[in-house]
Amino acid sequence: MQDLTLVMAQFDPLVGDIPGNAERAIEAVREARIEHGADIVVFPELFLTGYPPEDLLLRPSMETRLREARARMAAKVARDVLVIIGYPGRREGQTYNLAGLLYNGEWLDEYAKQALPNYQVFDEQRYFSAGTEPLVIEHKGAKLGILICEDVWKTEPVRLACEAGAEILITLNSSPYHQDKPAERLELLRERAAEAKRPLVYVNQVGGQDELVFDGGSACVDANGQLQVQAPHWQVGLMPVQFLREQNGWVPQSGECEPLPEPEESLYCALVTGVRDYVNKSGFKGVVIGLSGGIDSALTLAIAVDALGPERVHAVMMPYHYTADISRADAAEQAKLLGVGYEVMPIAPMVESFMDTLAESFAGTERDTTEENLQSRCRGVLLMAISNKKGLMVLTTGNKSEMAVGYATLYGDMVGGYNALKDVYKTWVYRLARWRNDQEPAIPERVIERPPSAELAPDQQDSDSLPGYDTLDAILVRYIEGDMSAEAIIEAGFAREDVYQVVKLVDRCEYKRRQAPVGVRVTPRGFGRDRRYPIVNGWQPGE
Amino acid sequence: MQDLTLVMAQFDPLVGDIPGNAERAIEAVREARIEHGADIVVFPELFLTGYPPEDLLLRPSMETRLREARARMAAKVARDVLVIIGYPGRREGQTYNLAGLLYNGEWLDEYAKQALPNYQVFDEQRYFSAGTEPLVIEHKGAKLGILICEDVWKTEPVRLACEAGAEILITLNSSPYHQDKPAERLELLRERAAEAKRPLVYVNQVGGQDELVFDGGSACVDANGQLQVQAPHWQVGLMPVQFLREQNGWVPQSGECEPLPEPEESLYCALVTGVRDYVNKSGFKGVVIGLSGGIDSALTLAIAVDALGPERVHAVMMPYHYTADISRADAAEQAKLLGVGYEVMPIAPMVESFMDTLAESFAGTERDTTEENLQSRCRGVLLMAISNKKGLMVLTTGNKSEMAVGYATLYGDMVGGYNALKDVYKTWVYRLARWRNDQEPAIPERVIERPPSAELAPDQQDSDSLPGYDTLDAILVRYIEGDMSAEAIIEAGFAREDVYQVVKLVDRCEYKRRQAPVGVRVTPRGFGRDRRYPIVNGWQPGE
Repeated sequence: MQDLTLVMAQFDPLVGDIPGNAERAIEAVREARIEHGADIVVFPELFLTGYPPEDLLLRPSMETRLREARARMAAKVARDVLVIIGYPGRREGQTYNLAGLLYNGEWLDEYAKQALPNYQVFDEQRYFSAGTEPLVIEHKGAKLGILICEDVWKTEPVRLACEAGAEILITLNSSPYHQDKPAERLELLRERAAEAKRPLVYVNQVGGQDELVFDGGSACVDANGQLQVQAPHWQVGLMPVQFLREQNGWVPQSGECEPLPEPEESLYCALVTGVRDYVNKSGFKGVVIGLSGGIDSALTLAIAVDALGPERVHAVMMPYHYTADISRADAAEQAKLLGVGYEVMPIAPMVESFMDTLAESFAGTERDTTEENLQSRCRGVLLMAISNKKGLMVLTTGNKSEMAVGYATLYGDMVGGYNALKDVYKTWVYRLARWRNDQEPAIPERVIERPPSAELAPDQQDSDSLPGYDTLDAILVRYIEGDMSAEAIIEAGFAREDVYQVVKLVDRCEYKRRQAPVGVRVTPRGFGRDRRYPIVNGWQPGE
Repeated sequence: MQDLTLVMAQFDPLVGDIPGNAERAIEAVREARIEHGADIVVFPELFLTGYPPEDLLLRPSMETRLREARARMAAKVARDVLVIIGYPGRREGQTYNLAGLLYNGEWLDEYAKQALPNYQVFDEQRYFSAGTEPLVIEHKGAKLGILICEDVWKTEPVRLACEAGAEILITLNSSPYHQDKPAERLELLRERAAEAKRPLVYVNQVGGQDELVFDGGSACVDANGQLQVQAPHWQVGLMPVQFLREQNGWVPQSGECEPLPEPEESLYCALVTGVRDYVNKSGFKGVVIGLSGGIDSALTLAIAVDALGPERVHAVMMPYHYTADISRADAAEQAKLLGVGYEVMPIAPMVESFMDTLAESFAGTERDTTEENLQSRCRGVLLMAISNKKGLMVLTTGNKSEMAVGYATLYGDMVGGYNALKDVYKTWVYRLARWRNDQEPAIPERVIERPPSAELAPDQQDSDSLPGYDTLDAILVRYIEGDMSAEAIIEAGFAREDVYQVVKLVDRCEYKRRQAPVGVRVTPRGFGRDRRYPIVNGWQPGE
């Protein structure tokens, strides 16, 4: 009986590092031969450039570099194994998103992606022309139909591959994570395979790139839509799939099947992956975090420690008159619990110095948010000084609910290189904190239980100026992810006053978000490449 | 002999303000009837939503609001005049970029844009499906072929309109300005009209929207490619075109022909328009500018005064130990010359207060850019406090050369809501300053003549750490606008050391640009929607 070993190379390329990604591929193929006796190794979409390469694709030298990298691969890659790998390429003046096939030192053929996503974070029509032809290649008696990512979210490219004689469908992906995506994706794969009556191999990358995180979860589904092999999520590695030729075609044998992680675990892993890869791929020694005694900075600290280890994480508490004693105590306790460096720097001298300088100019005015912002900005300047002097990146600690309504100070607590919780609603911040503590205590319980406060004014609580977070998040999800109008949200059962307050704040704060650091995207509508809103905007809430 | 009066409505919509834009249109048609006896009034592309509406297009209520606005227009627009106006619309589940035709209270027909730009700042394929059919409509005996913007940059849609019987081509545009664009555009119009052997009417909007500025310059070119009517650039207004039916078809009569402005004048108008519209459309009372005695802030101040008038502009000088006496004197002199409010706030007390607080943490370290950034950030915090307290938007003063190489302090001199010079290279800052002074003195001559310095360290000059600006800008233009590789720039005659230094800085500073305020785009590759680069980026300079 004929058999065939396909290895899914679930790896993490570095965007732009074409020579390095080619080396990673050469090494992975070698390992796949030795460890698994691979007949075929499949890499993710655009592996040689990393995904998304964005406007690097417009540089003419991109083509030169890819030519060199592919020549090097042809010379160095192990023999007697078919390598299927993604990269961009030009043909007759157009650029395509390609999957190249390399065998025994020869590049045999290329498939051009047909379905080019140009929505959400995707801009593929900015760069690529769409392919129109299927590609089926025979290897060791198996007819392989090649597809790329969005192709399998549509029906037409799959149909064309089947018509062209494909017996096994193979898809190369760079499919970013968002909440619920792993389950949605698996459902789709099962459906496509069953429709096509062909086994389907799905290879996805893993790792973080700016705001995107890729969760891996490469898999093989059989011709009945049954999952047979499932690689772990959030881990780099090789995963073999054994095919046997049976009466009714090539049948993937049941192999390792990692269960899908729980939603909290996946989300937490996404945040850890995002922070780890952003910091490491940018070459930073570590991070510094302003620890306030509140839940957002506490969760951010836990994520940073899980991503980088405690020795690369430094925490600074910057109290002022309105900082509660329990905030100081809880911050110190958490720093000790997690074993990170910890400093306390009271900000009163700086704040007072600004107020003195501004006194004349501000004579006769009332106290307002100016004074609150000033506290926040003194903290920002301190953190950036530590960052500059010690080579540590500042992690900001804001969450999606705050970013949405602008409950954050530009150049104050928004200061930083990366924002772990940027796309995490406050209600999910609580869920994650509890989930993380269930694994191993990382956040003092009191931090989770006390009412949230920015502590920028006496006895301030978030609920003084915003609806409670349950209500706030429910409105925000409908407005941001759901594109519902204010009136439609009211109809869905929310108080008119709350809805209009929230919607107006979201619309008005676009300018703040535009200057916010990037952060991990974990919803289908993050505040990065995902949501492109005008700042100057005459749109009024209503129908 | 038959005649026909077409009026080009070169107006300035407010993005998102659909009811307001409809009112503007109703009023403009009324005026076009009364003042010019218009038979036809043509508005710019997507006039009812403003351009670009970006992700507002994804809101289902967009359709509801447009329906209401169009119903109102049908009820209120003057009779006996054909109105041609742009708006988006859905047909069978797809969204199109449409030109609608309204006559005597009835919407007669719609044309769907065929060529959808998805490059540079344009994301039209994110929102729109492409039309495939020409539209020719007969009005008062003239057959009008309707086109939208990018359609006339291609040949196919023009050919289709001619084949369908168009005698006069009419194109609705929202074509943003960049340097040299007015001349390029006129050349294109002449070419298209001559090819098509038809007169071509080109209507463009005017005004600023976030980073984009639209220069107007609506025009009519005859069937020989000769310019017959040219509306002014940078001005809102109605411009009539008289057509006469002659033997060989409809002939536009020679009318007002404003000459194209000089490059300096156009660029300066673009910056004034950008600032004025951003500030006014966001509803700010005025602006505050940190005046340093250097040329960038001096030019920014002049632009702000020309945009808003001196009473809406406030200048603050924030000297430190390294601020030269002539800087203080020149800043004061310019503030007086332009008649703006002026304050001096020395920053030493704040800087010292931070250094005291950080002393323990920084013990044993050397002085480095941390201390320079601290000065800049204290200025940023002061400006933001004034902004918050007085409701004035901070204008940042950095230029494109600085933004490119990161010669700016994040949360320091990059603090602000809008950046007039963001896309203006330093060499052009000098040209503009001289041109502005030639009109009427606005900048002390010494500010233009002295060597540029950030004054963040003793006797510092920009040329200590960067190549001279002539060289720097020449390298930057090749790298940024030209997408040339480092080696290709060296081959073009630049020093290897300079090129590698500059290119590495540009690549490394993406993170700063990502948090920079928006500013006027005046080149074909600005640092906004135009240039989408990864922050985490393994691309190394080379071939």
